[in-house]
Amino acid sequence: MKALFIGGIKSGKSKHAELFALRQAKKKPYYLATTEFFDDEMKRRIKRHKKQRKKRFRTIEEPLKLSKVIKRCDDIVLIEDIGMWINNMLYHGKEKKIQKEIEKLLRCKQDIVFVVNNVGESVVSENALVREFCDLNGIVSQMIAKECDAVFYVVAGIAQRIK
Amino acid sequence: MKALFIGGIKSGKSKHAELFALRQAKKKPYYLATTEFFDDEMKRRIKRHKKQRKKRFRTIEEPLKLSKVIKRCDDIVLIEDIGMWINNMLYHGKEKKIQKEIEKLLRCKQDIVFVVNNVGESVVSENALVREFCDLNGIVSQMIAKECDAVFYVVAGIAQRIK
Amino acid sequence: MKALFIGGIKSGKSKHAELFALRQAKKKPYYLATTEFFDDEMKRRIKRHKKQRKKRFRTIEEPLKLSKVIKRCDDIVLIEDIGMWINNMLYHGKEKKIQKEIEKLLRCKQDIVFVVNNVGESVVSENALVREFCDLNGIVSQMIAKECDAVFYVVAGIAQRIK
Repeated sequence: MKALFIGGIKSGKSKHAELFALRQAKKKPYYLATTEFFDDEMKRRIKRHKKQRKKRFRTIEEPLKLSKVIKRCDDIVLIEDIGMWINNMLYHGKEKKIQKEIEKLLRCKQDIVFVVNNVGESVVSENALVREFCDLNGIVSQMIAKECDAVFYVVAGIAQRIK
Repeated sequence: MKALFIGGIKSGKSKHAELFALRQAKKKPYYLATTEFFDDEMKRRIKRHKKQRKKRFRTIEEPLKLSKVIKRCDDIVLIEDIGMWINNMLYHGKEKKIQKEIEKLLRCKQDIVFVVNNVGESVVSENALVREFCDLNGIVSQMIAKECDAVFYVVAGIAQRIK
Repeated sequence: MKALFIGGIKSGKSKHAELFALRQAKKKPYYLATTEFFDDEMKRRIKRHKKQRKKRFRTIEEPLKLSKVIKRCDDIVLIEDIGMWINNMLYHGKEKKIQKEIEKLLRCKQDIVFVVNNVGESVVSENALVREFCDLNGIVSQMIAKECDAVFYVVAGIAQRIK
């Protein structure tokens, strides 16, 4: 069973995704954190997030090889978040492997909850890298949504099931 | 009874919020304008808005102390808009009082219609102040939506009730 | 019969609009491409889009005079996209004719499928031209949605009918 929570910045998508993973878990869900780069602000955000998760999740940190890590999990995995992972892949020059890796992920037999930022409801950026990121984020969101059993669009903390 | 209209720039959220307030009013609804700073473009926008409202609302102007003003109202109050108020609070160094003031507002017994711009469906800004604003706007939207009886997400002039 | 597909960058709105036009066509739908300016990236995008459309559409290229072109069509017309057309109108100093032309379009007896980028779910731009574009894009979206028989909001490749 695979699910996607998509929404804007501070829309509440992570909170909903966490509750969903906790409800679906057999024992204790995994939390796969994709963040690789940290400035002070990021560290504060991550610390706060970790505190919020408390001891309800088993945390794994992996910036790139998501399917490899997930294959070893024996319970539902929450991936937080796909946008950050796309970012890491671009940084490491692996943009051509993004869609392949997503296909692998979607074939994993593990239950997965995906969290994605909805980044494209603005004017097209003047920055080519931002444009590339927006395009990839959108393409990957479509790929994931297509294979998910449940898709939720989150606005103002309210999750609407759209699939 | 409290309601929230959230949507993008020129999505039609204000028009829907105004119609809603007019329908819910006992006599004549209040229009609480939060705008504090004005350049020429803003002045033109505000003039146009005022003209659109005509004489259907009682207008109050208050950039900061929303709950204090609302407590004196004897009919439904439309607040236009919460994003501008967050902006004012940041400008005056009152960012730590934002959530407290929202809690106060939500405890007011008056009927309130909130209008909020949905600003987070884009890439994370490089500007720290914009990031702070986006985060606060999202957190406040969630707080308000949680306590509202009705929440509408407005796209292309169409208001979808999502709560 | 008129329909609108609105959504973010790479949300899948074009794919849905094309399928819709193909299903509604009597013989072979028209594809009205509004793009006027091309850099290398655009050319690549357009080439890819054309390839995707294959021979299922009759393609017309017109950056400005949409209603004039549509009046000669004897089957459903997909306009891709309205944001680009607004952009062209602004470039040619015809901003004051935008709403008139949209009114003309909406009075055409031909079936039309409109595609629009939802660009306003972000902070207000510091750039006056971007602000003007966002406002016009929003106003035009509302005008179109109001007259359409069907309106779809597309997120992550999923089209939700909102009217």
